[in-house]
Amino acid sequence: MTALLDALRTLVGPANVLTRDSHGDLSAWERDWRKRWHGQALAVVRPGSTAEVAAVVQACAQHGVAIVPQGGNTGLVGGGVPDKSGSQVLLSLQRLNRVRATDPANLTMTVEAGMVLQAVQQAAADAGLLFPLSLAAEGSCTIGGNLATNAGGTQVLRYGNARELCLGLEVVTAAGEVWSGLSGLRKDNTGYDLRDLFIGSEGTLGIITAATLKLYPQPAASLTALASTASLEQCVGLLGLAQARLGAGLTGFEVMNTFSLQLVRRHFPQLAQPLAAAPWTVLLEYADADGEAGARSRFEGLLEAALDQGLIGDAAVAESLAQSAGLWHLRESIPLAQSEEGLNVKHDIALPVSAIPAFCQRTDAALLAAIPGVRLVNFGHLGDGNLHYNVQCPEGGESLAFLATHEAAINRIVYDAVQACGGSFSAEHGVGALKLQEMATRKSPVALGLMRAIKQALDPQGRLNPGRVV
Amino acid sequence: MTALLDALRTLVGPANVLTRDSHGDLSAWERDWRKRWHGQALAVVRPGSTAEVAAVVQACAQHGVAIVPQGGNTGLVGGGVPDKSGSQVLLSLQRLNRVRATDPANLTMTVEAGMVLQAVQQAAADAGLLFPLSLAAEGSCTIGGNLATNAGGTQVLRYGNARELCLGLEVVTAAGEVWSGLSGLRKDNTGYDLRDLFIGSEGTLGIITAATLKLYPQPAASLTALASTASLEQCVGLLGLAQARLGAGLTGFEVMNTFSLQLVRRHFPQLAQPLAAAPWTVLLEYADADGEAGARSRFEGLLEAALDQGLIGDAAVAESLAQSAGLWHLRESIPLAQSEEGLNVKHDIALPVSAIPAFCQRTDAALLAAIPGVRLVNFGHLGDGNLHYNVQCPEGGESLAFLATHEAAINRIVYDAVQACGGSFSAEHGVGALKLQEMATRKSPVALGLMRAIKQALDPQGRLNPGRVV
Repeated sequence: MTALLDALRTLVGPANVLTRDSHGDLSAWERDWRKRWHGQALAVVRPGSTAEVAAVVQACAQHGVAIVPQGGNTGLVGGGVPDKSGSQVLLSLQRLNRVRATDPANLTMTVEAGMVLQAVQQAAADAGLLFPLSLAAEGSCTIGGNLATNAGGTQVLRYGNARELCLGLEVVTAAGEVWSGLSGLRKDNTGYDLRDLFIGSEGTLGIITAATLKLYPQPAASLTALASTASLEQCVGLLGLAQARLGAGLTGFEVMNTFSLQLVRRHFPQLAQPLAAAPWTVLLEYADADGEAGARSRFEGLLEAALDQGLIGDAAVAESLAQSAGLWHLRESIPLAQSEEGLNVKHDIALPVSAIPAFCQRTDAALLAAIPGVRLVNFGHLGDGNLHYNVQCPEGGESLAFLATHEAAINRIVYDAVQACGGSFSAEHGVGALKLQEMATRKSPVALGLMRAIKQALDPQGRLNPGRVV
Repeated sequence: MTALLDALRTLVGPANVLTRDSHGDLSAWERDWRKRWHGQALAVVRPGSTAEVAAVVQACAQHGVAIVPQGGNTGLVGGGVPDKSGSQVLLSLQRLNRVRATDPANLTMTVEAGMVLQAVQQAAADAGLLFPLSLAAEGSCTIGGNLATNAGGTQVLRYGNARELCLGLEVVTAAGEVWSGLSGLRKDNTGYDLRDLFIGSEGTLGIITAATLKLYPQPAASLTALASTASLEQCVGLLGLAQARLGAGLTGFEVMNTFSLQLVRRHFPQLAQPLAAAPWTVLLEYADADGEAGARSRFEGLLEAALDQGLIGDAAVAESLAQSAGLWHLRESIPLAQSEEGLNVKHDIALPVSAIPAFCQRTDAALLAAIPGVRLVNFGHLGDGNLHYNVQCPEGGESLAFLATHEAAINRIVYDAVQACGGSFSAEHGVGALKLQEMATRKSPVALGLMRAIKQALDPQGRLNPGRVV
């Protein structure tokens, strides 16, 4: 391996080949941020250009060494850290962090994979435009990682997942070739859709080095409201009404159950909760290309109609940007509040929107029957059918013991119910290492066969992020 | 082959295995509708269910016989008709034509591949919803064909191509297995994106038998306008202004050059043209979730702002549905008018919107220099960067002689310029048999290598639509 390390130092410079011997603690790259996986890399290699990435891949191929690509290392499924063997090269894309081109008249921007999402958003804003991908880790995740995992977030309802926001890619293949698929085209039917094959493949088919992204005009007005409902059925009814009346203006539709907001009240009592506790609280966001006044009248008209139809019990529209940020802060405090409460069993599931009320009723009941007193932190992106359906130990219980005893049974109850409803066991987080077992047991053998054939075709030596996804 | 024909008759019934001997003329299936390709099939087989499609594929595999899948046979690139060998099975999906499920609360509908697009639109309308894919052949093309070719059309600007309107697929693989990938999920990150790999693969990787489609609320108001501009630069400026002011409400943005509308005037003089002839005429469509009055005020506000900024010379907003249909009819009469004028050299190109003015200026000049007097029928979906940039013989010339002499040179001039601008030689029509040469010479070797590896992985015997795409 000394020969490979020497070759890598020549290719990217000695300062960009980090080893335990030369640099000490590498856990910033070797451990995922939730601290569930801690591997050991042969080296952390930080190329500075696409050509260097290709050269690194070629050198690793020559030495028969596997590569784990990594962006901001904020993934939730253990897909971006090396295994414990000490034999894998951790390839960090973070030095590829430039905007290559901005084309406002085409509403596109071409950026390198290692750019932090927030920097991409800012570069779009600097051009007077909007890049709408937005998620909790945006201050440290990279756009390459977002694309490799097809990230979701809070505006998917209007703008789609990372997949829908990308027009073209540059990818280094397993053979160390560069596929120059960057493209500012909205239409291009010349052969197979390589772009969407690499997007969401979690670094197992190729290494994304740059992307051409879709931009949008910034909305003239953006409004936020909270509304309380008595049931998930009413939430689904409100969603339908909002979609019919606001069309594409509806940019966010988040739901939070009682216990989610109770946890926020318990651990962050300083945060104002403008509505009285209700079985469900909905956060709606509306963006309008027209001015503020018309937007407010349309948004309030929706909420009045929902009140008239008995879909909501109460509602509050934010009167200022600060109030709007406060409502979003409530929603975004749920993950932290549940961490404060103690570890729980997390699920990132997707269901047909129409199936969600019955799914929750049945699954809540099954969990309570199996584990009396269990508490459900149920919140998420109802507009996309995506729930973070998390299971917390009974009040006063001990989290670690609870997980050790019940995690497997809880997962079985939840994922069996998801599968019965035609849902997905990973809506936006991916498969990584965490959900390999679900892949093997819950995907159809035909789908797995097709995926393995594709993996074999594009990475016949199995050198790219081995042991992930398939 | 008698053994195969007997097996097929047993599988799908004798009435659904059509041969020249038993049924006479099969040119409805063997010849494309532009009559550029006329093959000869071993048989036309019309299975009635997914299970029958799978059984037909297995039988053909056992006998080493290739399959050409076909929907409505309205493709423009010769991708759905058999070759002349008489040895290929033409597999028609037209009997798979049912709606399997409609889920209004999830805004989805699951339909079989052989449903005619117009019937899909109607089924959505019957549920009070909108399926927005719309194109000239909608009365006879099928949704399976639309997906296999990733069809575009007139509302891509707002709703995307066929790809963006599909959430899940059911596909019969080359091995005759059924991949049940139907899904009503907006988010699902469990492995590789098989759906998008099959979409646009033109029947070469698998046979689409059913799809789950996205539906949308019907807009409350829809308005259409014509506007005249002095240049393509102004058209691009108007597009940017319309996108900023109308947001997702802008559902159509079509451009037509002077000669396109001259041809309509010449061959369809009964059609009213409300604006005086101008270098460019733009058709804008605006849909609004709000009521008619507000929509009209926003739409007219855009046109007034465009007049104030000197982007347009004149404009007319349709005052009724009939007037709106009349404006669309003008646009849709261009292909027929050019046919009346005689055959021409057609191109379905995509470019970054920002590159279109310079591209046209340079390419128009190059063509006029190469062939003095040549006439350009230039029209299309500017909002998507997609032009139908067609080249007609000089006034009074003879079309067939013109094509025989100049087609190759014209294609070279146009496609070289497209390539130099980062464009595509097939925006929405696909590759089929027509554009194999462009694929081989203009796609990068890396892209072709990846595509061929995928084809080899999923159809190792090369039995599905051989000789198409790659």
